Amino acid sequence: MKYGLVGASGKLGKEVINVFTEHNSELVFSFDIQGEWKQSEPEILIDCSLPEAFDKMISLAKEFNVPIIVATTGLSEENINQLKKFAERRPVVQSYNFSIGIQILLELTKSTYRKLPEWDVEISETHHRFKKDKPSGTAKMIQNIFGNREINTTSHRLGNVTGDHTVSFAGLGEVISIQHRALSRRTFAEGILKSAEFVLKKENGFFSFTDVVFENKSMER
Amino acid sequence: MKYGLVGASGKLGKEVINVFTEHNSELVFSFDIQGEWKQSEPEILIDCSLPEAFDKMISLAKEFNVPIIVATTGLSEENINQLKKFAERRPVVQSYNFSIGIQILLELTKSTYRKLPEWDVEISETHHRFKKDKPSGTAKMIQNIFGNREINTTSHRLGNVTGDHTVSFAGLGEVISIQHRALSRRTFAEGILKSAEFVLKKENGFFSFTDVVFENKSMER
Amino acid sequence: MKYGLVGASGKLGKEVINVFTEHNSELVFSFDIQGEWKQSEPEILIDCSLPEAFDKMISLAKEFNVPIIVATTGLSEENINQLKKFAERRPVVQSYNFSIGIQILLELTKSTYRKLPEWDVEISETHHRFKKDKPSGTAKMIQNIFGNREINTTSHRLGNVTGDHTVSFAGLGEVISIQHRALSRRTFAEGILKSAEFVLKKENGFFSFTDVVFENKSMER
Amino acid sequence: MKYGLVGASGKLGKEVINVFTEHNSELVFSFDIQGEWKQSEPEILIDCSLPEAFDKMISLAKEFNVPIIVATTGLSEENINQLKKFAERRPVVQSYNFSIGIQILLELTKSTYRKLPEWDVEISETHHRFKKDKPSGTAKMIQNIFGNREINTTSHRLGNVTGDHTVSFAGLGEVISIQHRALSRRTFAEGILKSAEFVLKKENGFFSFTDVVFENKSMER
Repeated sequence: MKYGLVGASGKLGKEVINVFTEHNSELVFSFDIQGEWKQSEPEILIDCSLPEAFDKMISLAKEFNVPIIVATTGLSEENINQLKKFAERRPVVQSYNFSIGIQILLELTKSTYRKLPEWDVEISETHHRFKKDKPSGTAKMIQNIFGNREINTTSHRLGNVTGDHTVSFAGLGEVISIQHRALSRRTFAEGILKSAEFVLKKENGFFSFTDVVFENKSMER
Repeated sequence: MKYGLVGASGKLGKEVINVFTEHNSELVFSFDIQGEWKQSEPEILIDCSLPEAFDKMISLAKEFNVPIIVATTGLSEENINQLKKFAERRPVVQSYNFSIGIQILLELTKSTYRKLPEWDVEISETHHRFKKDKPSGTAKMIQNIFGNREINTTSHRLGNVTGDHTVSFAGLGEVISIQHRALSRRTFAEGILKSAEFVLKKENGFFSFTDVVFENKSMER
Repeated sequence: MKYGLVGASGKLGKEVINVFTEHNSELVFSFDIQGEWKQSEPEILIDCSLPEAFDKMISLAKEFNVPIIVATTGLSEENINQLKKFAERRPVVQSYNFSIGIQILLELTKSTYRKLPEWDVEISETHHRFKKDKPSGTAKMIQNIFGNREINTTSHRLGNVTGDHTVSFAGLGEVISIQHRALSRRTFAEGILKSAEFVLKKENGFFSFTDVVFENKSMER
Repeated sequence: MKYGLVGASGKLGKEVINVFTEHNSELVFSFDIQGEWKQSEPEILIDCSLPEAFDKMISLAKEFNVPIIVATTGLSEENINQLKKFAERRPVVQSYNFSIGIQILLELTKSTYRKLPEWDVEISETHHRFKKDKPSGTAKMIQNIFGNREINTTSHRLGNVTGDHTVSFAGLGEVISIQHRALSRRTFAEGILKSAEFVLKKENGFFSFTDVVFENKSMER
């Protein structure tokens, strides 16, 4: 596909270029603090930038009239509303986490909790020493599965670990652990590619990454 | 409940007595190489013995006309057929593994495989040094989920580890691992208790431990 | 050996009897809340009781004039001083943790810290849900290796896990983890047996379990 | 320092440039299949190339008359002999693995084996799916610690895992595991930097990476 990229020079933007290139997709437009570059009209627009660039991004999306994948974090409610409005016209995928494996971890955790509601549950996460918030946003997503039940959640900060999350369930006599280990940022770029392939088949609509990963599988589950 | 036990003096038999006693169930009949003991009529019969005792066990079940839980391993096809015939009259639960957690592991593995059919898969198991067969029977149950696909499966024999099983799935950039750790044989006795509670509500029928664990949950899945 | 046991009916006391019996040692004296039992003079006295029984225990040790192994926890400074005084006459091994593996973990941790003083360090422990203190006493022993440096230490309480401890060291680009997993209380009974064999060769002296595990190895290190 | 690099365009060569640049070292000479580039005389020469470039590399080292760090794998005995001869004049560090953590793992494994010679031992390694040899060279280095004793060693190939190695020791009742996880190739570049800093203080001599990591620590052990 021919794609445009907002935030091309950031860490995630660079990974997106690597992954899309390997899958024979062509970068034809980019926008960045360093300026704008255009070779031809994109079929889709990827946003890996910052909330500050949101207005420019949405006006580009309207101009090109193409689907968008929004991986920028820290969006405001107003931003989300603008995305939902745009989604009436062209499809949008928006998520704060484009790792397929984390989506699976969340599903497996929900499924286990439904079957073993009375077992002990504990969450553990490990990230690089530069990450300051504890626990991670993903750990909070896992906690939300258990509603008001308080789940002991521990955090480790070690070297430059990309990100590990473990959910453990235990009865008297056995322990089940579900673990996800992100090995590189590349994972997130692949989730964005999968979202792009998904969204090109849609007319319009506002989608999460969970929709991308599970929609086609929903019948067989 | 008032229960009868065939194989009362074996390792698993002793754990069954411990767990059932804690849950206010009363042993009223036992049969063993050391002989027969009877206090009153049992409501259910548990079999934790050896295939050699199968004929005696089935004749006791007919005599008492009660549901049976069969945890004996190494049964013949003929034995299974006799159980199925008896199951037309009174309910039977038969399994080679009464750990709830292993049932969950199998379900999570199936679910992950459906969603990530193209990811790498590897299985690993660790047991005590006295276990001679490699890989474990449970590892083979996990392999079966993947049909004809050959799954690299490794075995470790360390000290007196009760039994660990791990299934790992990996894409480029991330790894998901689902692990089960049995901490003691007690786990299996608890699975037998759960089966007993399940079967007492049935009129008849031949059930696996998977049915016990998942039947009541099937609607909400 | 012929041994005496104070606290014979406790959980650890029972394991001591199992392990010593397997190694052809004979219980010839026991003292308990249920009373005193004596078949012949013991060559050594094992204490797996409570601080409340300390005075009785020390008077028995004096009476028999034999080496003692003290596994009772929660001793006062006064108790320890009495043990040290007795140790001038006959040898004493006193420790709060008789697991050989934990001694190894402590050694490996010290060794790694000497070589990688600038790496990140984190400690994690998991125990059964009935353990109320966090972190475990063993985790505190590990923390002490790092002196005044504050080490992030996390605790999980899951099912009936006997006790896991992990120390992780990380630089940018790699992680080393040293993990100890206790599979059963039997481990501690074996440490007591090893201590008994050690102490029978001594004239007198006050020893820790670290001395038992490492003394004979110190020359070859 | 001002350094020269043979094999500058390879994966490891690029990481060397990143790490050395961050530590204010300046690339002043490079040699590659793409040709030779020289800005000024290097103080040290790093070799991250292939055995085919060995002759050119050694002649460059003689020309510059500087210490060399050789990270090229698959060298012949003849190559090693030439390095040893050159080492009479100027210092050389040669190794097939420049990860500090792996050196620590080897040391901890030796130390544990000395203390627990009778425990069960098992080795496990996991690498990316593109690695074809099983077990890894590093796993073989670990096996060598145990001499003629055969150590069960398992291999997993999952996604793009950089490289994990685990050595487990077990007695009846406990398990100790020592694990190393390489998070990125950067680790190896940092080992090369450490070797460069080490070798600049030497007059001459042939050194392994083990010497680099442990020499200065040997007194305090």
